[in-house]
Amino acid sequence: MDILLQYVVKSFDRSTKVIDFHYPNELLQEYNWELADQPQNLEEILMHCQTTLKYAIKTGHPRYFNQLSTGLDMVGLAADWLTSTANTNMFTYEIAPVFVLLEYVTLKKMREIIGWPGGSGDGIFSPGGAISNMYAMLIARFKMFPEVKEKGMAAVPRLIAFTSEHSHFSLKKGAAALGIGTDSVILIKCDERGKMIPSDLERRILEAKQKGFVPFLVSATAGTTVYGAFDPLLAVADICKKYKIWMHVDAAWGGGLLMSQKHKWKLSGVERANSVTWNPHKMMGVPLQCSALLVREEGLMQSCNQMHASYLFQQDKHYDLSYDTGDKALQCGRHVDVFKLWLMWRAKGTAGFEAHIDKCLELAEYLYNIIKNREGYEMVFDGKPQHTNVCFWYVPPSLRVLEDNEERMSRLSKVAPVIKARMMEFGTTMVSYQPLGDKVNFFRMVISNPAATHQDIDFLIEEIERLGQDL
Amino acid sequence: MDILLQYVVKSFDRSTKVIDFHYPNELLQEYNWELADQPQNLEEILMHCQTTLKYAIKTGHPRYFNQLSTGLDMVGLAADWLTSTANTNMFTYEIAPVFVLLEYVTLKKMREIIGWPGGSGDGIFSPGGAISNMYAMLIARFKMFPEVKEKGMAAVPRLIAFTSEHSHFSLKKGAAALGIGTDSVILIKCDERGKMIPSDLERRILEAKQKGFVPFLVSATAGTTVYGAFDPLLAVADICKKYKIWMHVDAAWGGGLLMSQKHKWKLSGVERANSVTWNPHKMMGVPLQCSALLVREEGLMQSCNQMHASYLFQQDKHYDLSYDTGDKALQCGRHVDVFKLWLMWRAKGTAGFEAHIDKCLELAEYLYNIIKNREGYEMVFDGKPQHTNVCFWYVPPSLRVLEDNEERMSRLSKVAPVIKARMMEFGTTMVSYQPLGDKVNFFRMVISNPAATHQDIDFLIEEIERLGQDL
Repeated sequence: MDILLQYVVKSFDRSTKVIDFHYPNELLQEYNWELADQPQNLEEILMHCQTTLKYAIKTGHPRYFNQLSTGLDMVGLAADWLTSTANTNMFTYEIAPVFVLLEYVTLKKMREIIGWPGGSGDGIFSPGGAISNMYAMLIARFKMFPEVKEKGMAAVPRLIAFTSEHSHFSLKKGAAALGIGTDSVILIKCDERGKMIPSDLERRILEAKQKGFVPFLVSATAGTTVYGAFDPLLAVADICKKYKIWMHVDAAWGGGLLMSQKHKWKLSGVERANSVTWNPHKMMGVPLQCSALLVREEGLMQSCNQMHASYLFQQDKHYDLSYDTGDKALQCGRHVDVFKLWLMWRAKGTAGFEAHIDKCLELAEYLYNIIKNREGYEMVFDGKPQHTNVCFWYVPPSLRVLEDNEERMSRLSKVAPVIKARMMEFGTTMVSYQPLGDKVNFFRMVISNPAATHQDIDFLIEEIERLGQDL
Repeated sequence: MDILLQYVVKSFDRSTKVIDFHYPNELLQEYNWELADQPQNLEEILMHCQTTLKYAIKTGHPRYFNQLSTGLDMVGLAADWLTSTANTNMFTYEIAPVFVLLEYVTLKKMREIIGWPGGSGDGIFSPGGAISNMYAMLIARFKMFPEVKEKGMAAVPRLIAFTSEHSHFSLKKGAAALGIGTDSVILIKCDERGKMIPSDLERRILEAKQKGFVPFLVSATAGTTVYGAFDPLLAVADICKKYKIWMHVDAAWGGGLLMSQKHKWKLSGVERANSVTWNPHKMMGVPLQCSALLVREEGLMQSCNQMHASYLFQQDKHYDLSYDTGDKALQCGRHVDVFKLWLMWRAKGTAGFEAHIDKCLELAEYLYNIIKNREGYEMVFDGKPQHTNVCFWYVPPSLRVLEDNEERMSRLSKVAPVIKARMMEFGTTMVSYQPLGDKVNFFRMVISNPAATHQDIDFLIEEIERLGQDL
């Protein structure tokens, strides 16, 4: 306990390093990680815990901006410890009575917030957004061609899914796994802000139909991974309605904004979706993992996935079997992911999540306002950030004088990786970078930890300049 | 902390109830579980924790025999708390340096134990055995027809998978999800002990080939869910070799026996498998979830699943990219499941797991020896248990006088559900029951918690008789 609490306190302390970075080979050699025949004593075990934490990334540090999931909520952490202690499994009410009820209550509340009448529908907590998106694809296919469950893809025409070129790679991953194939995922063009262009969506749907293929799913994104863009959900909903296509919204990253009166308009139209992915472990700061798939139609998940294993889902039990929800999952055993979200929600209230979201978005706007006219910065796209994503290049002095040609691009592409490597070696802060399309490596700043302040944003800028000015 | 530790202490105390059972509606009404706008204070939050644990199943209780996963290892629990505190994600070395290395070390050790030369190969910790089995099916299909990734199932002939009629339902679930279809999963006959009959396997493979279908996977089971049976792996391996079919071994439940010199012969031939599912969260007592898929051929998982997301798997990072293993997963974010296994392994040593396994199997034999000749008991199958599964009917006095006809069967089928319901209402112990094939409801005892003793087994028998003698 002391070791863990010391770590938590350090994570919140800005004078501590975000990471004590070592290369993989160094770390492998520096320490004996091997598994042996004989037991070790308590002192050694405690030392392993200390060592593990020494080299861990402090994801709760207010200057850790590297991923969509950051921060460390103390109620969420306590709830996760309770979950570990209860050490059970979600398949039946019999062995997880409270957790099954909390999943029921929490998913219903999330569906109400999405805007489905009376919070009706279905859902599940799944091991991450990629699996939630895969569920959506699986259920959409089953809805259109239920025979696929028994007969496989051989029994159905060629199915086509549509998603934007900025969408998450899990759509393609899902299509590959489900036997649909990545060639059958059509990437729709985005505007310069990263939003799907509805006219291109309609054009590609018509094209697919002309070829005799069957459009079965459109996955719109609410909060893209890199730009934080929100696809125009109302326009997408109209198109899905017109062509009778399942509308999925991947709001893994953007779903949190539904908690905010100020920002929820960005998801207008989400209430018309057939399914929604929403990861409270991202923008809402719930400990990893907590991802929900919500489905508008009740009963569909169950029909799609159930296999009636008689040793788990006995039909002659003495309680209401509608709470034995395990058979609608792809998993058999399923980790309890709901309790940390539920307990945080009780502790913060919806109002607390709203304040959290509003603060993070305000910080992103603060960053945007600092750098949009600052010397040495170029924005990847114009306009205020819609989510907390702020995408920019830092241009070191030596590059500022160059013409905008290939050589400059080539040199600029090497700037972010070097600054990032130096950040990790100093351990002072961490932020992600990537190329996208024809845009060379740029920084993608995201803020999901409400412990971050204006000073931390200022620090990031100073640090980028300190580490990059000689490049 | 006090609340959690009190719960742990109670879990280990035989005078505490295993469960304080309430019907779903009672539990929903007794307490306000709803989520509100406004925050609650610390006192209320602590009360929620207490309430949640009050109604939880004590899965660590020595008289909880209901599932394959039981017990509560204190080192495993501490490790899970550390994992929650570190709150990170497995996709890259960058954000999980130690955990990525520990996964590497641990999976290699598991492959060595399976018997693959030098522990070579690949693997991943996945969210449960069902997903591990689905991975195996996915990778086997990709190995035979790599074009399926882009082109989908339309581009390949009809694929057939084979598994025994006693195998886990996740094979069918996986086939449904992957677009193969449940009709293409052929269930091979078992002998009376629940072991796959190799000659039937070969016959069905030939039959499928004659129809022009392509056998691509045989999933043998090492430790079936209900009987605890071990399929004859050597014979299955010979058939797979002869017909060039991917051999998967679902050792989710039986894999733990590989840690025991005394019992590992039951898995002879597992070293010839192409892939193995092995869930340390079952027989090895690691907290939920901890399931590994091991693959003999290196690189295949990566080719099968990678999508090269440039915002995660940048190719210009400053460290050895072979440790960025996230792209071989179906998931994007992936929970850290390795640390609890690794730390328990350091604390117990292989020798400690061996003692744990041997003790549980000895307890099962003890139970078998008590009831095999005891009045009022009938064994579901003859012979000593191979795993800790002991399957039996308790026949109340009123039924013992009846002839072996349909009426007796019908009455016998109602005995186990009533005893189980009474067990839950008294909260004294819990054991599972189910029908199987033409066998009506019988008890399936399993033991995976080394805290159980001979006295706990005696107690179970007395309790069954106390609760069932009037039926």
